[in-house]
Amino acid sequence: MAAKTLVGRLVSREHKREDTVVSVRGASVGGPGLTVIAGPCAVESREQVLEAARLVKAAGATILRGGAFKPRTSPYSFQGLGEEGLAYLAEAGEETGLPVVSEVIEASDVPLVSDYVDILQIGSRNMQNYALLRRAGKTNRPVLLKRGLAATLEEWLLAAEYIMDAGNPAVILCERGIRTYETATRNTLDLAAVPVVKAISHLPIIVDPCHASGDSAYVLPLAKAALGAGADGVMVEVHPCPGEALCDGEQSLSPAQFRELMDQVNKMSPVLGRGVVSQ
Amino acid sequence: MAAKTLVGRLVSREHKREDTVVSVRGASVGGPGLTVIAGPCAVESREQVLEAARLVKAAGATILRGGAFKPRTSPYSFQGLGEEGLAYLAEAGEETGLPVVSEVIEASDVPLVSDYVDILQIGSRNMQNYALLRRAGKTNRPVLLKRGLAATLEEWLLAAEYIMDAGNPAVILCERGIRTYETATRNTLDLAAVPVVKAISHLPIIVDPCHASGDSAYVLPLAKAALGAGADGVMVEVHPCPGEALCDGEQSLSPAQFRELMDQVNKMSPVLGRGVVSQ
Amino acid sequence: MAAKTLVGRLVSREHKREDTVVSVRGASVGGPGLTVIAGPCAVESREQVLEAARLVKAAGATILRGGAFKPRTSPYSFQGLGEEGLAYLAEAGEETGLPVVSEVIEASDVPLVSDYVDILQIGSRNMQNYALLRRAGKTNRPVLLKRGLAATLEEWLLAAEYIMDAGNPAVILCERGIRTYETATRNTLDLAAVPVVKAISHLPIIVDPCHASGDSAYVLPLAKAALGAGADGVMVEVHPCPGEALCDGEQSLSPAQFRELMDQVNKMSPVLGRGVVSQ
Amino acid sequence: MAAKTLVGRLVSREHKREDTVVSVRGASVGGPGLTVIAGPCAVESREQVLEAARLVKAAGATILRGGAFKPRTSPYSFQGLGEEGLAYLAEAGEETGLPVVSEVIEASDVPLVSDYVDILQIGSRNMQNYALLRRAGKTNRPVLLKRGLAATLEEWLLAAEYIMDAGNPAVILCERGIRTYETATRNTLDLAAVPVVKAISHLPIIVDPCHASGDSAYVLPLAKAALGAGADGVMVEVHPCPGEALCDGEQSLSPAQFRELMDQVNKMSPVLGRGVVSQ
Repeated sequence: MAAKTLVGRLVSREHKREDTVVSVRGASVGGPGLTVIAGPCAVESREQVLEAARLVKAAGATILRGGAFKPRTSPYSFQGLGEEGLAYLAEAGEETGLPVVSEVIEASDVPLVSDYVDILQIGSRNMQNYALLRRAGKTNRPVLLKRGLAATLEEWLLAAEYIMDAGNPAVILCERGIRTYETATRNTLDLAAVPVVKAISHLPIIVDPCHASGDSAYVLPLAKAALGAGADGVMVEVHPCPGEALCDGEQSLSPAQFRELMDQVNKMSPVLGRGVVSQ
Repeated sequence: MAAKTLVGRLVSREHKREDTVVSVRGASVGGPGLTVIAGPCAVESREQVLEAARLVKAAGATILRGGAFKPRTSPYSFQGLGEEGLAYLAEAGEETGLPVVSEVIEASDVPLVSDYVDILQIGSRNMQNYALLRRAGKTNRPVLLKRGLAATLEEWLLAAEYIMDAGNPAVILCERGIRTYETATRNTLDLAAVPVVKAISHLPIIVDPCHASGDSAYVLPLAKAALGAGADGVMVEVHPCPGEALCDGEQSLSPAQFRELMDQVNKMSPVLGRGVVSQ
Repeated sequence: MAAKTLVGRLVSREHKREDTVVSVRGASVGGPGLTVIAGPCAVESREQVLEAARLVKAAGATILRGGAFKPRTSPYSFQGLGEEGLAYLAEAGEETGLPVVSEVIEASDVPLVSDYVDILQIGSRNMQNYALLRRAGKTNRPVLLKRGLAATLEEWLLAAEYIMDAGNPAVILCERGIRTYETATRNTLDLAAVPVVKAISHLPIIVDPCHASGDSAYVLPLAKAALGAGADGVMVEVHPCPGEALCDGEQSLSPAQFRELMDQVNKMSPVLGRGVVSQ
Repeated sequence: MAAKTLVGRLVSREHKREDTVVSVRGASVGGPGLTVIAGPCAVESREQVLEAARLVKAAGATILRGGAFKPRTSPYSFQGLGEEGLAYLAEAGEETGLPVVSEVIEASDVPLVSDYVDILQIGSRNMQNYALLRRAGKTNRPVLLKRGLAATLEEWLLAAEYIMDAGNPAVILCERGIRTYETATRNTLDLAAVPVVKAISHLPIIVDPCHASGDSAYVLPLAKAALGAGADGVMVEVHPCPGEALCDGEQSLSPAQFRELMDQVNKMSPVLGRGVVSQ
């Protein structure tokens, strides 16, 4: 078990018994309430991200997401709008009052991305990009750290340790599915990660059911499953018009699907001992 | 996706649009209510299974489980009490009024096991034991079919097809975790299997969080996750005294843990649109 | 490591230091020479298996294979000719002087199959069908035991222990690929299994590159890799006309491909310290 | 199959039919001869790397390896000597006349590392670190690209495409084992990758049996297996005294083990149609 080898590390319960709560511009992750991070996979235009921000805000999301630097398997796929996208995202965050999170994929980009976002996201492909982890650890921005595609829980927590060891205590873990032999879904969501992480670490943990399933039809049941498992929230992709998305359209929720998700989250939340979601 | 290749098969939604409800001696699986199957991993003695039956019945379980023929990785491990165990289990079922389920591991044992139990269980190791599937398909006993350790959803549903093609329409699927690289839990519970199976098949599906996690500490959050995902119920191991169990003690719930699980299931159930659990 | 837990078991090097050599009608597996088992995936007709037997014999194969009872994922796939197929296979074995191996998929069929074959094969799906293992362990026929699709080396060796514990010391292990996330090949051939098994067990081990790759184009390099890893031989599918095969045609070698394989095996064999292949 | 989606890409056979041969200071990879890259996991001192260089040169290695920037799972593990280590490695390469390869783990380090080494290595953790791939693609140094721990062949080749698309045609692929459920070895060496890559790409491919197995006892059989599969060479860790290594000691070959490996490689090489190894 991972527990033993982590004793005394900064990420461990032995080091810090009480839950870590990450707070940013009025939103918090890991406290009594649930977090819902929503927005488009990629920022495609000023209009698209503004429309997405307004609709997820209206439905009750607490944090806005949107990708500007996109890590893509093929060099010929859409790579994101870069700084222009960050600017649109920041504007949408300001207008709606939602804090924003966006991915940074290179250590040297950390200062630039930090200028625009409230939370730095480090994606699955970069979970063991140690230069990036250390650079993010030297900022005062919380870091949302996704689990690597085939990372063990121990490796994931040690990646968080790199960030904390560099000086940044505000790490949010995000389970997003692991690679297995099963092809009916894009990845296999490992929800046992939630209670295991809660047992051995004080860090908050949320779940991304979109990348895990790769199919918007399965996002709602998996989001509810994540909350049942004890996750501190969920992160979902929402697009004003999923059919026209430049990336990950199949797994993005439509506005109606997102409202349904918020409705169900708010129904489940009190039963789980957590209040109604609101910023 | 599995969906395409299953079109028109007996297990498929295309073949039968409405949900299959399996009913047995007053209990039903797949209907509006949730099912909770509980009992010891192995029947160890008359006293042990009677005590277990009374306590799970008192807490609200709807079906009693208990292993008499145990498939074990090593030939030198405890292999179960055999027919003697079945007799004790049947007696416990009669006294408490709970229908009983127990595993059958060989085709030639199907008539014997059918004499004692209400539901035949086919375990992970035997998911592609076609002789066993066909023999169980020729009985009038519902079959609880566990997913193979590394089976795809398509292979699992085709195993159910063997049972249905032999004449038995009453199949209950049970997700129990798949084998992956992660060792923090015994197996990786694949909860996406629940909504995917619901989409492509009419068969009921329940979840076994004990074998999936291998640790009683994680059973409650995973059971709640399973219900969030839309499962028709859960199957858990409960032992009057887990520390003394002859097999799987670490993953068996104590009586107090099981009462807590029933309490939480009953709290979640109405929110999920399903009534309080009762037989 | 598997080694520790196997100390003293019948399969272990601690129990028996010298290599086990399985001998049957003039052919041997695990001795100084290499073994080449060849023949069609399924016996389809008397003519087909006779033609296959003659051509593999002429090219230098030492044992003839052919399936009569076929375990198939779907109940609607060709299930084999059954006893009729066994009779054709036995006839082809007699005519060519090659010992024959065929799969048995049910414990109750063991006596029947033993009447026709020299070696009983237990396939991947049945590696943990303990009734079948025990029944095969009570015969005087060597058993070729394939590794389960997701079996660890320890589980595989403990399956062999079931056969040996029942009284049969003649077990041949066969690595045939494990299930992983990679889809470029049908399974992932785990050739490290060969030296690890050699280190902890005295049993002979061969490799099946056809089921591992699922593509005849990759069989020759993988067969050579298996020999480089120290395997005692290979088992391959050869069909007089792969394009017309009733099962596994894509992974079956043509007569010309098989002759090329034998040619290369015979070139490598002396370098590996093993003589030219011949019965 | 990966083949289809790669048609026309720079890495594909359709784009370039003849094998790519990477030549560097007298050594070549992918030509008629075999390549043996050897040296310590990490450069620990001037003396250690000089001693290692002399012994691998004497035994017949064609390229010297040694890590100066070490990506480590824990921030508290030895991270390598950095530029100091590169200087020692370069000196050892000059003295022995062997070209040298060392890992670069951050895009901004590419110019520095390029000053000291003949071949840039990009490790498994960074296979999808696109900034690093692109930066390496803008140098005139060949790049040895290891397969990611859970990368498909298609993702791996698309990572190579990033390098080639940036202008660098000299990519050497290196299979080093993938992550699976099996724990008897550190990773599962996927030797089918060799013939599949040869079929769909023109790039040379070598194999690292040390990281794959994690145990020096299995390196020799796996190296021979790699050559049997058609690899253009192997890369192994050799330490003057494995018991004292600062990292990966269990999987490092001793001087005697490495001489035995070279001896066996030279015996197999002619049979495989490739000449005796020499620079």
